[in-house]
Amino acid sequence: MWCAIPPDAWQSVCAERDAADPLAHVRARFVLPPGEVYLAGHSLGPLVAGVSERIAHVIAREWGERGVRSFSEHGWIDAPARIGAQLARLLGAASDEVVVCDSTSVNLFKLLSAALALRPGRARIVTELATFPSDLYVAEGVASLSGGAHRVCAVPRDALDAAIDTDTAVLLLTHVEYQTGALRDLASLSRRARDVGAISLWDLSHSAGVVPLDLHAAGVDLAVGCTYKYLCGGPGAPAYAYVRRDLAASLRSPLRGWLGHASPFAFEPSFRPAAGASALVCGTPPILSMLALEASLAALADVDVARVREKSVALSDLLIAYVEQRAPDPSLELASPRDADARGSQVSFRHPGALALSRALAARGVIADFRTPDLLRLGLAPLALRFTDVLCAARTLCDVLESQTWDRETYRGDVRVT
Amino acid sequence: MWCAIPPDAWQSVCAERDAADPLAHVRARFVLPPGEVYLAGHSLGPLVAGVSERIAHVIAREWGERGVRSFSEHGWIDAPARIGAQLARLLGAASDEVVVCDSTSVNLFKLLSAALALRPGRARIVTELATFPSDLYVAEGVASLSGGAHRVCAVPRDALDAAIDTDTAVLLLTHVEYQTGALRDLASLSRRARDVGAISLWDLSHSAGVVPLDLHAAGVDLAVGCTYKYLCGGPGAPAYAYVRRDLAASLRSPLRGWLGHASPFAFEPSFRPAAGASALVCGTPPILSMLALEASLAALADVDVARVREKSVALSDLLIAYVEQRAPDPSLELASPRDADARGSQVSFRHPGALALSRALAARGVIADFRTPDLLRLGLAPLALRFTDVLCAARTLCDVLESQTWDRETYRGDVRVT
Repeated sequence: MWCAIPPDAWQSVCAERDAADPLAHVRARFVLPPGEVYLAGHSLGPLVAGVSERIAHVIAREWGERGVRSFSEHGWIDAPARIGAQLARLLGAASDEVVVCDSTSVNLFKLLSAALALRPGRARIVTELATFPSDLYVAEGVASLSGGAHRVCAVPRDALDAAIDTDTAVLLLTHVEYQTGALRDLASLSRRARDVGAISLWDLSHSAGVVPLDLHAAGVDLAVGCTYKYLCGGPGAPAYAYVRRDLAASLRSPLRGWLGHASPFAFEPSFRPAAGASALVCGTPPILSMLALEASLAALADVDVARVREKSVALSDLLIAYVEQRAPDPSLELASPRDADARGSQVSFRHPGALALSRALAARGVIADFRTPDLLRLGLAPLALRFTDVLCAARTLCDVLESQTWDRETYRGDVRVT
Repeated sequence: MWCAIPPDAWQSVCAERDAADPLAHVRARFVLPPGEVYLAGHSLGPLVAGVSERIAHVIAREWGERGVRSFSEHGWIDAPARIGAQLARLLGAASDEVVVCDSTSVNLFKLLSAALALRPGRARIVTELATFPSDLYVAEGVASLSGGAHRVCAVPRDALDAAIDTDTAVLLLTHVEYQTGALRDLASLSRRARDVGAISLWDLSHSAGVVPLDLHAAGVDLAVGCTYKYLCGGPGAPAYAYVRRDLAASLRSPLRGWLGHASPFAFEPSFRPAAGASALVCGTPPILSMLALEASLAALADVDVARVREKSVALSDLLIAYVEQRAPDPSLELASPRDADARGSQVSFRHPGALALSRALAARGVIADFRTPDLLRLGLAPLALRFTDVLCAARTLCDVLESQTWDRETYRGDVRVT
């Protein structure tokens, strides 16, 4: 689509795409600093308008005036299940299958421990080496509890299929790889797990909100994910956990707290799990962060993820096509899949000077991020970006690389001083 | 001190105490709704002035304008250790021994699992039946992971000493009992644990901020606690974990996430724990809730907890003495220790109509809480309360009980309609 554009036509083509963009009006729902193209949506999504006012209200009126009564009067106590139900729509799940609480790592610990107990006699947690390291640490920690009965098998992608065997208890995978944005096939890998009698457990942190999900149709057993990337929930916003309904009755997390109890205010001496995913709620959730997430989700609730995906693919393709047409530096190498069907909403490039490059871009108003040792990640939050914004970022990247001097610049904060 | 006051002199005596109160000026640092006496400080502390403005700034400026860069630019990434160091002062701990993250239940899970691994061959987690149920659920969950090797022994208070034996791996206790406010002896029970080779693990949720703590002097090994009660951190504010320095190097939580890694941004495939308590940080913390806590702690940082304790004792004694002098109802029974040295900052009464009583009090502007089946809890946050406020609450309680009609009232919200 972007391959035959003459060099001097990019701007007008992108402007036309913006004019025809069915999601263009959604951009006004974000608070975006002027003069910047923010390509760190894969890390922390942009601020949604109204969140600040909502939280000011929660603090002053709900906490300040009503205090502890707000747990019931303002629905604080139901927030994990209520926001979980809101998210369920995005995940293709039933409302009682999703709950919001704790962090992705903590929720992963709960589900992974509980899944292992459902497959006694099986030793292996199979995963990929390219899984987000925190997920690997969690898996390691869970395995450490078994006195050697469980072990983590983290393999390269091309060895994954062979690694999934009848000794596999859980197949733990990331839907979108954090470094390259490579997208795994949710349905076929979940089926592969099921075929050998293993449980599938997915981390959806980099796909929820930008990739249409239908966890039921894909046959996914368990999933977790964060809400501060493409879901724009705010820094460190609580994570979610999904439990397929037919597993919920038998799944028992070892991490049990009073808010996962069937009757929290009965203060019974023993734990009786709440129904569905709600049994996974543990301690009292961080209400301010929870309600900021809820406000963001509410502001974007009418957006169709299929449309978001279309725009995400178009923006990513534009970025790749422009950079490859200009080919500004032979050392710059596309690290993401070129095929849009195999890619999330992120374009990564490798370059030996990626760290300096990320700083040179920031000094010019293009916010991307660097991952050691040589990765430049450009995360596309499609609702907050115009085609012309992404073109501007692609141009800036090429201009910087062609300038020859970018790796000798110095900065004060983001501001270039030489 | 309060026993010889003639019935008509209470008001003037309390007004004098307010005038002489060295902490009186601190009350102005709270945002308190007019016409109410808030006695739920044991549940959710009142709002500290400036928190709303601080969080509005964090949302608009730090998240909105700087996005992901605020993790470094505005110190979000260091918040767990930084706020932990602030809290360490209140706990009598070194700054690297305390970290703020996750909930009390999750932190308890980490420490309890890790402590058991330090005492191989010992089976028992000894605790009290009166421990907050969520802590019991956590202990049950941890024990469930061992395939029968560990078990929870929850005993009545008077059987505790006999239960602590050489098969005890961990002594898990609540410093202040949530129902009655009864205060345990931190030092002697920690010594008792140490004498049999067990590890002491305390939940300080109901004491930090109102009871002077010196965890080092008391020989406490491990501790957790919430920050939303007397520390006024806000609803569901993140909890803390304390690890005695000489245990930190050997203690290994099975709950491991990237922010507890010695080098989080190296994205190494295996977990290497950070030094000190920081290894306990797991996933990305909920920044809005974290920074609300930090703002509250900063606003109260100059307050001497020894003074807070003096005022807390005086307020509690006043409440008990007034109610007992008037003796409004033979069914009302003090559930808290009468001896101030054996009591936290909470006065509980038992009454068969405690639920209706709590509603009748709320309708008259006295906010307390009910715990099933018959407990009325009055939690005293001394910094936000005047002596005359507590007198007003005590009077209202007696007036209601003497009115004879309080248990036939009906309400719309807090407002009495009959």
